Amino acid sequence: MWHLMGSVRIIVTHKSMAGRILLLVLFMNAVFFIVNAVPETCPADLGGKCGEDGEWEGEFFPGVPKIKYEGPSSKNPLSYKWYNAEEVILGKKMKDWLRFSVAFWHTFRGTGADPFGAPTKYWPWEDGTNSIAMAKRRMRANFEFLSKLGVDRWCFHDRDIAPDGKTLKETNSNLDEVVALAKELQGDKIRPLWGTAQLFMHPRYMHGAATSSELGVYAYAAAQVKKAMEVTHYLGGENYVFWGGREGYQTLLNTDMERELDHMAKFLEAAAAYKKKIGFNGTLLIEPKPQEPTKHQYDWDAATTLNFLRKYGLLEFKLNIECNHATLSGHSCHHDLETARINGMLGNIDANTGDPQVGWDTDQFLTDVGEATMVMISVIRNGGLAPGGFNFDAKLRRESTDVEDLFIAHISGMDTLARGLRNAAKLIEDGSLAELVSKRYSSFDTELGAQIEAGKADFEMLEKKAMEWGEPKVASAKQELAEMIFQSAL
Amino acid sequence: MWHLMGSVRIIVTHKSMAGRILLLVLFMNAVFFIVNAVPETCPADLGGKCGEDGEWEGEFFPGVPKIKYEGPSSKNPLSYKWYNAEEVILGKKMKDWLRFSVAFWHTFRGTGADPFGAPTKYWPWEDGTNSIAMAKRRMRANFEFLSKLGVDRWCFHDRDIAPDGKTLKETNSNLDEVVALAKELQGDKIRPLWGTAQLFMHPRYMHGAATSSELGVYAYAAAQVKKAMEVTHYLGGENYVFWGGREGYQTLLNTDMERELDHMAKFLEAAAAYKKKIGFNGTLLIEPKPQEPTKHQYDWDAATTLNFLRKYGLLEFKLNIECNHATLSGHSCHHDLETARINGMLGNIDANTGDPQVGWDTDQFLTDVGEATMVMISVIRNGGLAPGGFNFDAKLRRESTDVEDLFIAHISGMDTLARGLRNAAKLIEDGSLAELVSKRYSSFDTELGAQIEAGKADFEMLEKKAMEWGEPKVASAKQELAEMIFQSAL
Amino acid sequence: MWHLMGSVRIIVTHKSMAGRILLLVLFMNAVFFIVNAVPETCPADLGGKCGEDGEWEGEFFPGVPKIKYEGPSSKNPLSYKWYNAEEVILGKKMKDWLRFSVAFWHTFRGTGADPFGAPTKYWPWEDGTNSIAMAKRRMRANFEFLSKLGVDRWCFHDRDIAPDGKTLKETNSNLDEVVALAKELQGDKIRPLWGTAQLFMHPRYMHGAATSSELGVYAYAAAQVKKAMEVTHYLGGENYVFWGGREGYQTLLNTDMERELDHMAKFLEAAAAYKKKIGFNGTLLIEPKPQEPTKHQYDWDAATTLNFLRKYGLLEFKLNIECNHATLSGHSCHHDLETARINGMLGNIDANTGDPQVGWDTDQFLTDVGEATMVMISVIRNGGLAPGGFNFDAKLRRESTDVEDLFIAHISGMDTLARGLRNAAKLIEDGSLAELVSKRYSSFDTELGAQIEAGKADFEMLEKKAMEWGEPKVASAKQELAEMIFQSAL
Amino acid sequence: MWHLMGSVRIIVTHKSMAGRILLLVLFMNAVFFIVNAVPETCPADLGGKCGEDGEWEGEFFPGVPKIKYEGPSSKNPLSYKWYNAEEVILGKKMKDWLRFSVAFWHTFRGTGADPFGAPTKYWPWEDGTNSIAMAKRRMRANFEFLSKLGVDRWCFHDRDIAPDGKTLKETNSNLDEVVALAKELQGDKIRPLWGTAQLFMHPRYMHGAATSSELGVYAYAAAQVKKAMEVTHYLGGENYVFWGGREGYQTLLNTDMERELDHMAKFLEAAAAYKKKIGFNGTLLIEPKPQEPTKHQYDWDAATTLNFLRKYGLLEFKLNIECNHATLSGHSCHHDLETARINGMLGNIDANTGDPQVGWDTDQFLTDVGEATMVMISVIRNGGLAPGGFNFDAKLRRESTDVEDLFIAHISGMDTLARGLRNAAKLIEDGSLAELVSKRYSSFDTELGAQIEAGKADFEMLEKKAMEWGEPKVASAKQELAEMIFQSAL
Repeated sequence: MWHLMGSVRIIVTHKSMAGRILLLVLFMNAVFFIVNAVPETCPADLGGKCGEDGEWEGEFFPGVPKIKYEGPSSKNPLSYKWYNAEEVILGKKMKDWLRFSVAFWHTFRGTGADPFGAPTKYWPWEDGTNSIAMAKRRMRANFEFLSKLGVDRWCFHDRDIAPDGKTLKETNSNLDEVVALAKELQGDKIRPLWGTAQLFMHPRYMHGAATSSELGVYAYAAAQVKKAMEVTHYLGGENYVFWGGREGYQTLLNTDMERELDHMAKFLEAAAAYKKKIGFNGTLLIEPKPQEPTKHQYDWDAATTLNFLRKYGLLEFKLNIECNHATLSGHSCHHDLETARINGMLGNIDANTGDPQVGWDTDQFLTDVGEATMVMISVIRNGGLAPGGFNFDAKLRRESTDVEDLFIAHISGMDTLARGLRNAAKLIEDGSLAELVSKRYSSFDTELGAQIEAGKADFEMLEKKAMEWGEPKVASAKQELAEMIFQSAL
Repeated sequence: MWHLMGSVRIIVTHKSMAGRILLLVLFMNAVFFIVNAVPETCPADLGGKCGEDGEWEGEFFPGVPKIKYEGPSSKNPLSYKWYNAEEVILGKKMKDWLRFSVAFWHTFRGTGADPFGAPTKYWPWEDGTNSIAMAKRRMRANFEFLSKLGVDRWCFHDRDIAPDGKTLKETNSNLDEVVALAKELQGDKIRPLWGTAQLFMHPRYMHGAATSSELGVYAYAAAQVKKAMEVTHYLGGENYVFWGGREGYQTLLNTDMERELDHMAKFLEAAAAYKKKIGFNGTLLIEPKPQEPTKHQYDWDAATTLNFLRKYGLLEFKLNIECNHATLSGHSCHHDLETARINGMLGNIDANTGDPQVGWDTDQFLTDVGEATMVMISVIRNGGLAPGGFNFDAKLRRESTDVEDLFIAHISGMDTLARGLRNAAKLIEDGSLAELVSKRYSSFDTELGAQIEAGKADFEMLEKKAMEWGEPKVASAKQELAEMIFQSAL
Repeated sequence: MWHLMGSVRIIVTHKSMAGRILLLVLFMNAVFFIVNAVPETCPADLGGKCGEDGEWEGEFFPGVPKIKYEGPSSKNPLSYKWYNAEEVILGKKMKDWLRFSVAFWHTFRGTGADPFGAPTKYWPWEDGTNSIAMAKRRMRANFEFLSKLGVDRWCFHDRDIAPDGKTLKETNSNLDEVVALAKELQGDKIRPLWGTAQLFMHPRYMHGAATSSELGVYAYAAAQVKKAMEVTHYLGGENYVFWGGREGYQTLLNTDMERELDHMAKFLEAAAAYKKKIGFNGTLLIEPKPQEPTKHQYDWDAATTLNFLRKYGLLEFKLNIECNHATLSGHSCHHDLETARINGMLGNIDANTGDPQVGWDTDQFLTDVGEATMVMISVIRNGGLAPGGFNFDAKLRRESTDVEDLFIAHISGMDTLARGLRNAAKLIEDGSLAELVSKRYSSFDTELGAQIEAGKADFEMLEKKAMEWGEPKVASAKQELAEMIFQSAL
Repeated sequence: MWHLMGSVRIIVTHKSMAGRILLLVLFMNAVFFIVNAVPETCPADLGGKCGEDGEWEGEFFPGVPKIKYEGPSSKNPLSYKWYNAEEVILGKKMKDWLRFSVAFWHTFRGTGADPFGAPTKYWPWEDGTNSIAMAKRRMRANFEFLSKLGVDRWCFHDRDIAPDGKTLKETNSNLDEVVALAKELQGDKIRPLWGTAQLFMHPRYMHGAATSSELGVYAYAAAQVKKAMEVTHYLGGENYVFWGGREGYQTLLNTDMERELDHMAKFLEAAAAYKKKIGFNGTLLIEPKPQEPTKHQYDWDAATTLNFLRKYGLLEFKLNIECNHATLSGHSCHHDLETARINGMLGNIDANTGDPQVGWDTDQFLTDVGEATMVMISVIRNGGLAPGGFNFDAKLRRESTDVEDLFIAHISGMDTLARGLRNAAKLIEDGSLAELVSKRYSSFDTELGAQIEAGKADFEMLEKKAMEWGEPKVASAKQELAEMIFQSAL
């Protein structure tokens, strides 16, 4: 056996530092987003005015009007060309098909940092702190943004919207303070599409949360999810999401995968029980992702997650499919949407896209009309997504640093999906594609077909038929015709 | 709507050709492997002699002795350096851990053809026909090969071992004739590890077999599987495999995925029922593959297949994991083995490997000792694979055209797994790696850990603990140490 | 040292079979496409009539009219919705921007076979032989197809259009016979966009052609290219293409890469010399591809090929960029087009596309309008492609088996590129995107910018400026705005 | 045209913030690595003692002895099992073949942060500041680390080793102060393998450095490289490296690729001129990488970089091949090493590895003995790497947080390459593999072969030979035998 004692000795020595590290970690949370040492001031430029307490006054986006629908011929970047909220498509308003949501983290906490680069974005309302005051100011900006876009839903992680405190209690209290403001700002119309807990950023979660090798972390994560569910419920959230940020492994050499998956199941079971306890009626959603940050995430794709849910009897959960995650796992977005749908599990869509030649999550705003049309075909087949919707889990490119870019990106993403909806409706109304498909399977629309589909056709009966019929006829799949019809609707 | 009538007209006209096409197809099957017009002769070179009826006499591999274990220092390519069949490792003979099987198709029907190239292999015993006589001669070569290698198991598709006839009945009778010979040649010791039906090569299966859009093809496939199961049973096969060669889609635009999956489930249900009916006790195995030949196969990977089996209540099936398929689906082979294992579903391994930079199935013999060691760790954890084993679903490179290359490739594959077994045993006996892993999770080996694992720790209790404990301690994952220990065992 | 003697002995024995193998190979070529044993007959159905000598009479595509432009609102699959040959776009006719070509091999020799499946396509005019008579009948079908599509160019490999003979001399004479007919059928208007030699299908080329380890193969390939160049020249071909089908390696373990690349350079040098000798003025083109059939092709992508050409002083060659090859090498098609263009080397485009989730060459017809628009932007910047053009190196899906599918696929591909051309023109005429780009670089449109670009700004001068200026201003990259403008033109 | 005026207005408004942003950026640099607010203290635990000025005293790694060679049977993680610095292999000491270097950035500035997570590493000597005092303490730790490992070389970016100041001048002066200490600590034996400038982390470089769309950034980068070259020269560095961190694009829609590449060439030209001016004799190296952080880096792989260098006449540059970058670009590491080598351009190796199933740069320590053996085969063929070497551009996993992990990881990486060297030597001494290869090409070791290789064999001569010889003989490639021989040496 390897003499690990030497190693253990060092570990022990290192553990004597634990107190100090802990201290660092606590402070770190308080200032994690501080990337500059500028004192908290009133950033008065861009027309904002400071009140007496240094608080922001006036608009956050003074140059941006309420975004209106101007139609496809408009060349105004700050207008909708395809998204016309109240217009009825296939019997439902566009806004009810699309149920858009702004992701607080990308839009208001995205800094442009990447593994090779420091933050690039310095929005005028940011003062360089992670204080509660800053959190509140940011929340006001969020609601002005929603209102100018004409979007009624938003999504958040607990740690996006309020800073860590020195203890969990203090952290929860910070969260309560900001949530109270959000509640007020929401008014009658705006609600969270969903809330979630950020269980991946803090170093305590480096080995996972529900699947951490450390029991203390499991408990901490439970406490955090408990609070995040409460807060989501309080704000009238319609769903609650689990993205297993670090639920996975970096190497199987040091991992007990079976035990970790068992823990994850127990954790979700407890979450479902707590949901009932507090009377929260929102859907619980799991968001698959194949890799990143870990080498292998447990919720690899829709099918993997469904196998997990079935194995552990967790069928009240549904799926939140993210397009960029789907393509990273080797499927088209449409494939994973359909997989979720035909299993009765399609709950929500994280609307974004990846770069087809890039092997990591780029979280770009979807601008491909063909892909958007495929996505909307699934949504229409699903009868819509409610109480789920489309969350823009998408971010500005690191190099896009103008405030207006935030609007342009969202408008572009919304217009793309709206155009997809219009195209999907066109295809459905035309009917040719559906006819092509149903014709392909028409040999099953027969008595024997019905028997097969009812599980009443055994091998002996089928062999008899096969012998009787001789070589079966096989028609062309007409893929090129199907593609031609599809492309013509774009 | 698109005026498809024009299109339909042409289809109809085309269909008037159906009879002729059918005829072609029937003949095509009879001669599919004819790539030259040389008359059937006795290929007397390489020392073989022809009997009166033109049949092969003498050895097929006259230059090759029975392969013996000579140990790691041997430089004889036709010897085992690591595989010593009778040697006991961790309480079991190597041959019982490894249960090797030769794949008839790659070894005796592989021609070296690829999408850009004609066949390259002209084994001396081949006469250029796909006749029954040739099928029998090939079967004799197979048993000489098994015997010289010292391998007791083989795997086959129905169509590999006997030619198509003009009707299904004739085809079945051809199969019976060759199977009778195989039964005789098997003797007491040799058995099929598994049999299967080839449901992908013939054009009738171009849209799939169980998932074909044509009912006639579904019935034909049922008849074919019925016969293949009977034959496998007759030969004493220990398992029966389903690889869904074309069960998948080329585009979702023309596909009713839900209906196709329902059909697949009914098909497998009927297969399981027929297995019982004929008293076949072998395991039914499904072999996942992500893509190729279709753009998306339904049995994408282990987890996807498990979801399918759970959804349709088909839990008597187990998995046949192929390493090259696992890596094509984005997982390490070890990952998919572990996924199958912890779901209680690891039944068999198709032992091969892919090229890490290549996006298609290369079916190479595994020669990476590190990968082999990981594979054997899973197998040992699984308590072995019996009644499954290791089938060499691996082929010579197209450019390897010497008869001896067939032996060298198998010896290399067998030695690599044998070396993997030795290394895995070394790691287990040393114990350091297992200790490193169990230490990582030791915080769960406590009372609260037991409560969590029993599903008795609710969020309120856990929150209380988290508040009480403060920031949890998180130890190093020691990945580099784990890798060092692992590499040192190689 | 390994005692390879045993191995060598077997090789020697095997070599005694060389004569027989050779014989097989020769015959094999003569009948390589025979997949059925039906005697050569007159396939009279589909309205064709047989003359006395059993030759086909009447139309090959009786149900298909000459394809006309009917505009975007047409729902007739056998019409152009976007391609209007004589319409002028940006000062040039559509047919002159697009210079389409039909690929003889995919359209007339594609069988639908894949590594897991037998042929699926049995066109009515095929009689199941690879005879010269069949080759001529096929050539007539080709010209009827071109004429009905309204396409003036075609591309071919030598071995597509005429069968192998028993000797190279006989093979050449077969080729001459078919080429004479093609010349006659071409008339005044139709010409080969390019010709090429098929140096990958025959087993002699299994180790490559110009990079084969066997000198005899190098010589044979030279003879074959010599003839193919002569034939291309005779037919008035505008270019000659080299696709290094097997110029690459399967493993570096058995490969002398440096020596192979040296041989390839000498081969191309000799080809260029022979071109001059026979007075052929067409462009010599190299077509990059990263992998498949070999694990690593030498002409990996545009940049790799350019490095090779520069190293060996072969700058008279240009590139034939294939979109599916570009994406397989990790680039967008547009990237590799731009790489070729800015190196002054963009000569031709093989117009097709791949599946973004698939790791092999699918050679699909391009139907993505966004991608087509990017492609056309490169072509317009290049001032067009002449004497190159767009060759449809694209094939029907294996499951598309109707004759009309051949037309639908080409129409779809042509319309997609035509639509791309219209969109690219719209973008250029609008000017916003170009302005956005030129503004980004405007700081270089200054005196110091000019000095830098002239190579006159040394580090000392630049440091002085940097010190003087302080922190540089960096504007937003406006990627989302650029994407919005681009998408709006689709 | 799009009415971009609105957009421009906002930009202008935004630009009025430029001053403020600039200020933030400046400060940000000063404190970029501050992730906690703990005041600079003497971290006295782990046995370190504080001097009067709060400076660290005693060892940084008190638990770690000087690492010694103990041979393969040792189970001490803090010993070498394969690397025996003074042992002679193939006529050269191991340390001279391997010329190892520690990468300052990963080892001393790696925080464990990733796109989804905060830093995890808090080394005892870190005080949470980015001060000069901290920079010096870290430098002392570096030299103790080098000395305990027995490694004589280190690599650095300018910004790793010293903090940014408020102006470039102040930044340079910070650098000088730390470099003076490094010079002193280096003593006689230790030298930088190479230095480089960090041109990617700071937001000013978000559009690239030499390829930035902003002239001011180009100038700033020039000033920074100028200084970094001076400093490298002063420290006795043997090479200087250019890794084009953000020299590439995120989308071609907003990019003038040709102009950017021209700028890059002028920049490198000026760098080469400045090298001469200051009398620096080290090699200038370019390090290819395909993607990340940009969607497409200009120095994609070895061949792409070579094409660039040839196009612009920059042939005095050589390549620094990083294994993880090679595999991300679709090649094996061995392939890119061989590509560099046969072009006479292999200058240095960044020794690391990636995860074969992961699409981003994981920078892991290489632990695969097979890959290491391939790498060493290239190095031996190259006659070694001097004045280049092996830089460990590799980092601890985020979850490895013990100080000893830094040692374990480096020992593991060094041992793996040392084992690769021993294996490569074994293969070379055995000679079987080389013989197999040279035999394959023996048909070119003839008179005609010599003529071909001299460029004297034209197509007419070759055709004559081909006609004369008939069908060429083609031998087996013996890939499986080559693999067997290779694996047996591991």
